[in-house]
Amino acid sequence: MKKHLLTLTAIAALTSPALAQDAPEGAPSPNEIVNAAAPEEWVAIEAEDLLVMTLAPDAGGNAREVVIQLMPAPFSQGWVENIRTLARSRWYDGTLVNRVQDNYVVQWGDPGYDNPESGETEAKPLPEGLQVMAQEDYTARVPVELISPDIAANFNPIVRSGWQAPILRDAYASSATFESGWPFALLQYPDKSDRWPVHCYGMVGVGRNYSPDTGSGAELYTVIGHAPRHLDRNIALVGRIISGMEHLSSLPRGSGTLGFYTEEEADKRTPILSVRIASELPEGERPLFEYLSTEGETFARYAEARANRRDPFFIVPAGGADICNVPVPVRAYEYADGE
Amino acid sequence: MKKHLLTLTAIAALTSPALAQDAPEGAPSPNEIVNAAAPEEWVAIEAEDLLVMTLAPDAGGNAREVVIQLMPAPFSQGWVENIRTLARSRWYDGTLVNRVQDNYVVQWGDPGYDNPESGETEAKPLPEGLQVMAQEDYTARVPVELISPDIAANFNPIVRSGWQAPILRDAYASSATFESGWPFALLQYPDKSDRWPVHCYGMVGVGRNYSPDTGSGAELYTVIGHAPRHLDRNIALVGRIISGMEHLSSLPRGSGTLGFYTEEEADKRTPILSVRIASELPEGERPLFEYLSTEGETFARYAEARANRRDPFFIVPAGGADICNVPVPVRAYEYADGE
Repeated sequence: MKKHLLTLTAIAALTSPALAQDAPEGAPSPNEIVNAAAPEEWVAIEAEDLLVMTLAPDAGGNAREVVIQLMPAPFSQGWVENIRTLARSRWYDGTLVNRVQDNYVVQWGDPGYDNPESGETEAKPLPEGLQVMAQEDYTARVPVELISPDIAANFNPIVRSGWQAPILRDAYASSATFESGWPFALLQYPDKSDRWPVHCYGMVGVGRNYSPDTGSGAELYTVIGHAPRHLDRNIALVGRIISGMEHLSSLPRGSGTLGFYTEEEADKRTPILSVRIASELPEGERPLFEYLSTEGETFARYAEARANRRDPFFIVPAGGADICNVPVPVRAYEYADGE
Repeated sequence: MKKHLLTLTAIAALTSPALAQDAPEGAPSPNEIVNAAAPEEWVAIEAEDLLVMTLAPDAGGNAREVVIQLMPAPFSQGWVENIRTLARSRWYDGTLVNRVQDNYVVQWGDPGYDNPESGETEAKPLPEGLQVMAQEDYTARVPVELISPDIAANFNPIVRSGWQAPILRDAYASSATFESGWPFALLQYPDKSDRWPVHCYGMVGVGRNYSPDTGSGAELYTVIGHAPRHLDRNIALVGRIISGMEHLSSLPRGSGTLGFYTEEEADKRTPILSVRIASELPEGERPLFEYLSTEGETFARYAEARANRRDPFFIVPAGGADICNVPVPVRAYEYADGE
């Protein structure tokens, strides 16, 4: 079936701050490498793994739609299933964006309401059937051989044979790599290895109270600044925003503790009109997104080009790349009419 | 002279996304460690190194002031001096924020205007006396012994004796560290070492055209997303935003190429009313800021706590920290009345 491409997300946000000017000849940019990928290197995202969050229109009356891709197994599946349950029960509808903390997170959910009779702040009742997850589920064990022994001394990406995903040097773990389109950190101990998804820009996590609480999925946040990697292994990551990120990242910052809006700023809270799983929508209204396979030849070339920019603007290749500075290419597509 | 503290910037943006709840007992947070620093560990920033950029009021009529700290020697001093010349000549007054690219940069300067007679887009004439800098000035040579030989294998911060600044593992260089309150990357070659300032959130750089152009300082940008470290050594960094960052990071994103506002979005461009060096302002109107010495005991303890959070929200210490996730504490102060 023939596809028409619509938009490129993620990677489009990483071109250079040059002024408008004709470019001299140069090597292909990371975007150009991605755009030349063979169609079979793109993987369609299942409708069950796409959430469509519709915010109230902005002050100018413009629609604001955010699309979230949910994380696949083996990670965070209990929380992910809770999120589907919350969406199907329409629990998110009518909740609010309550917190915008600069260079950190945007958080949305139930702000609670003051009951005049009880005088208490009461929470919106949750639907039945939500799972309670354990802290151990923030990480997963992996085979030790997944980890490259020499990556620590090497900050250029190590591209492995057989087009496995590249391995990157990491400031928080033994190394970092990709699997099935998602970024992970790998930590090797003498007798075992752990693997966990990382808090890159646009990743979506589950707000929680103090341990042992692990959160239900009713309270969600996304990263709007430099990757707060210290949250890795301390909170469940459940997905990432693949479209409409600017509707959250450009919201006014809250002046309360942790960036929560104060009572005086209540009018700044952005209403969430609805959250739907794409599979709940009529065929014609479902968003269609695909990601570039992280185990393919093109992604390996893209990661190397991200670490060593040779397109015209650049004069010194970096010689390395942070896992969160190699965003997995995700793009929207639509089926051509009559095909 | 006695000081009254006003606001904490930078580090305040890195607390956890927990819901409001009483905290259980725990080890001190990075912020608590910083707040307990001895007064003599705080270094006052010279008025010559502070730029006050006043934006037009927002839609609600609220004032928007941004304070930029300029970078000290030995880095980028040619561009920094150009920026002082541009500010003293009032060149920046009346320029605009022309570009807002999500997870990348906000850029301001002269958008150029279309001359109806010539039919050309003409640039605002620059003042005389601006220096032309060389690409070599993006980096500096450093003594080889500055670099720890074992940092590559160790991702926990290496705190050096005599309270030198901690050394961090880095995905872009042999290591990363701090000096005089600024973050740097260090790259060791067999026969030499290079050092350069890094593109962390809030750092301010000089827009340029294609090489060999290095920019004058008339076109500036700041980072509003994950650190675009691939720009290190490719563009001059001249400072960082230490107050009012939210006035830039929350601006609406541009829909044109590279996030520039299109002609149809011209009304979204934020006017820059004035840019003044603090030393140009009357004594009583000068902003007063100080940074925590990066060579002191408190900063070493702060960096270690950033890498291994033990305050109540956290259950697993990260065991490492990215240089841009250890923001140098900067705070405003004022002199107490009558002292």
